[in-house]
Amino acid sequence: MSPIARNRTTKVPLYEEVAQKIARMVEEGTFKPGERIPSIRTLSRQLSVSINTVKEAYGSLEDRRVIEARPQSGYYVCTRLPKVPEDPDLSRPELNPTAVSISELVAMVMQDVLNPDLIQLGAAIPNPELLPVDKLNRMLSTQTRRHKLESISYAIPPGCKRLRTQVAQRMLLAGCELRPDEIITTSGCMEAVTLALRATCRPGDTLAIESPSYYNFLQLIQELGLRALEIPATPAEGMSLEALRYALDHTRVNACMLISNFNNPLGGMMPPEKKKELVELLGQRDIPLIEDDIYGDLSFANDRPTVAKAYDSAGRVLLCSSVTKTLAPGYRVGWIAPGRYYHQVERLKMTFNIASASPTQLAVAEFLANGGYDHHLRSIRRDYARKTALMGESIGRHFPEGTRVTRPRGGFTLWLEMPEYVDSLRLYGRAVKEGITIAPGSTFSATGKFRNCVRLNAAFWSERIDGAIETLGRLAGEMT
Amino acid sequence: MSPIARNRTTKVPLYEEVAQKIARMVEEGTFKPGERIPSIRTLSRQLSVSINTVKEAYGSLEDRRVIEARPQSGYYVCTRLPKVPEDPDLSRPELNPTAVSISELVAMVMQDVLNPDLIQLGAAIPNPELLPVDKLNRMLSTQTRRHKLESISYAIPPGCKRLRTQVAQRMLLAGCELRPDEIITTSGCMEAVTLALRATCRPGDTLAIESPSYYNFLQLIQELGLRALEIPATPAEGMSLEALRYALDHTRVNACMLISNFNNPLGGMMPPEKKKELVELLGQRDIPLIEDDIYGDLSFANDRPTVAKAYDSAGRVLLCSSVTKTLAPGYRVGWIAPGRYYHQVERLKMTFNIASASPTQLAVAEFLANGGYDHHLRSIRRDYARKTALMGESIGRHFPEGTRVTRPRGGFTLWLEMPEYVDSLRLYGRAVKEGITIAPGSTFSATGKFRNCVRLNAAFWSERIDGAIETLGRLAGEMT
Repeated sequence: MSPIARNRTTKVPLYEEVAQKIARMVEEGTFKPGERIPSIRTLSRQLSVSINTVKEAYGSLEDRRVIEARPQSGYYVCTRLPKVPEDPDLSRPELNPTAVSISELVAMVMQDVLNPDLIQLGAAIPNPELLPVDKLNRMLSTQTRRHKLESISYAIPPGCKRLRTQVAQRMLLAGCELRPDEIITTSGCMEAVTLALRATCRPGDTLAIESPSYYNFLQLIQELGLRALEIPATPAEGMSLEALRYALDHTRVNACMLISNFNNPLGGMMPPEKKKELVELLGQRDIPLIEDDIYGDLSFANDRPTVAKAYDSAGRVLLCSSVTKTLAPGYRVGWIAPGRYYHQVERLKMTFNIASASPTQLAVAEFLANGGYDHHLRSIRRDYARKTALMGESIGRHFPEGTRVTRPRGGFTLWLEMPEYVDSLRLYGRAVKEGITIAPGSTFSATGKFRNCVRLNAAFWSERIDGAIETLGRLAGEMT
Repeated sequence: MSPIARNRTTKVPLYEEVAQKIARMVEEGTFKPGERIPSIRTLSRQLSVSINTVKEAYGSLEDRRVIEARPQSGYYVCTRLPKVPEDPDLSRPELNPTAVSISELVAMVMQDVLNPDLIQLGAAIPNPELLPVDKLNRMLSTQTRRHKLESISYAIPPGCKRLRTQVAQRMLLAGCELRPDEIITTSGCMEAVTLALRATCRPGDTLAIESPSYYNFLQLIQELGLRALEIPATPAEGMSLEALRYALDHTRVNACMLISNFNNPLGGMMPPEKKKELVELLGQRDIPLIEDDIYGDLSFANDRPTVAKAYDSAGRVLLCSSVTKTLAPGYRVGWIAPGRYYHQVERLKMTFNIASASPTQLAVAEFLANGGYDHHLRSIRRDYARKTALMGESIGRHFPEGTRVTRPRGGFTLWLEMPEYVDSLRLYGRAVKEGITIAPGSTFSATGKFRNCVRLNAAFWSERIDGAIETLGRLAGEMT
């Protein structure tokens, strides 16, 4: 009747099979040294084997010093076992990046985040030392205490009202007049973008995107069965409107997607008049624009720039953002102002995962209202401006002649174009061996472009990183 | 240059346009009474209008008593304004449920959760009074304090290790031997199911499901462009294997999906030997099984039942679950053990929203390890057993002759089959007018079945609910 009893094919005694099952789970770390294992009665019921069988199994495990009985308490995994290390989880496969697919490579770059031994120049994560961790977590405590019922209940879409109100207030500074009920909260900006694409495109549709483009966008486009039309972008102003206009005249495009401010990876900011022109250009053809503004608050200038959504009177722009780059990636608090696609996005959010976590929405709403967010922004903007500049100088010193690097006006990543002979996939493989992770250029294109480029995260800049840049420069130079 | 300056079409003076913009945002609740609005300098820069224009605008708003200046501090929304009520957000549209689509109806039933004035017999939410809110929120505080860096960092898939270890331990009680690294954490069970469907099916594929089936599953199937093949289920044992076998012989089926324990809405539990048979039946045809076990811990018996995954040696079962029904819906903590689809699911999770919120994963891991989860389960199981029984009796007293009701052995919902003359859509409309929300039967079918059925949530049972059942019974009887 039980999985154990009915699936038996071996001649091992039944108690030994039970013993082996438990021993395996201890070995694999499911039960850790010092932890209690199920009682004899529970396990016997659960596996539909007799009490005596489990007793024999536990006896055998005691003999082997895998578990021990504690009077009046039950059975525990022996603490004398060698401690299973909690981290890392990361058995890196034997690395030959040129042989793996782009999507495997992207997964590797993102998983590198979890490896504390690597110098983090890869994924575009903010520097935790610059995040208001204690204040945020304190607000998480107080807010969940104050809003008990709300903290454990579904924040049914459109999501936490207080957060939406705060976002609407802040969006005024980006030139947008939004009502709280035009905003839907999401699990980070990436989910906002996912919902936007699902709401505007069907499989087979064509999407105009910047080139180079954030690698997770390319993954998503592939996953949803869309076609990416890569429009060239410049480090100064982002997507070329001339190229876009030409493309629209020659190809049927169903939607356009870009990061309008300090885009990833180039760091370009589309000037306000070009944003307006973009909205008009797409408007004439009734094409929706998915605008990612995740870096908008990280301008090195005094003010945050406007968004394209500010020029949208027809509800064609779906504005996506989050606090991932400024407060806490792990809180997964983002939002979307989907314009005329509001109802589709709301329904999709409910269908895919019902709602986003309530406690972190409450905490972020409180931080935006009373946490000194503007003060915090002023401080990290200055810091990132300094860090990107210093890393840029370091690259100038250490990379081979002919290397070009961006000078972003916001955000915290740099884009390098190295001499043609440098293969960024091989560079990634060699860099990881030296304890450094980077984002190879090839991951930013759907069509194999940017092999000699690389994106570097400057958020962690320090003296130690200067050494890492020197190492990278040397590795690149050795590829001549 | 600015949105304001460039989009002007009226002859209203510029300062008046700025004033109207701020007044609108106050009216709509974006800026609330007592809140500070942007400084003159900030707004002038942001809207690219002169300092004097903003000064004039603010002066005009002061005259109208919309805002007030506070010396050394800035401008604030007047507190003497009538207070904008924080809740409800819920302007219910004029209700004619028979005229709306099923997906609109489902959205209505789910949004009803937010309305504190309604008696909640609709959505299958647990009773918050039975949830360990204080303990959970306390653990949220201590865990985020203890694991600072982890709390704000991405829990990159497969997600929080400690949570996965706890889940692997508990799954032994469901007959499953799982390693922590076979599990991926998700934003609730619904996201686990979404990922499972994306990993196993392509648009146009056919999915065998139970009938009746949880309405959000039907929404998801429609959204992903799949076809639902409805296999009859019974309140005792769930999906009919005889019917499934027949269907598999006559139709090409790409995947099968069901709630194996105390399914929604019937409350049926598939016996262990039938679970095994199901796995074998699908295995012969190499068809993946998406198994939702969200109610598994809510058995009224001593033990939690096994899952079909326990009989799966080929990795064809994708087991999905969460703590939504037992600890906190709003925490959005769920998981999936996707078997041979592990890598697809991991990549999809990363692509759609990168990761789930870290703080709530940490808190749930701690609760499962040290929160007395088993003790908690024993208490809510007893309570739900009592509540479903009492509501069943109440239904017997108050509903029209010929009404049949399930006697579930777990979970907290009841399924009613009323006389043919009762239209559950109209019943929903009338019930809401009486302050009661229910889940109409039609939402549980893709093909218009169950018009005379309704699902009722018994989790909130009390004397007051007895009156609501009486009202519902009367409304149903009046439809003769």
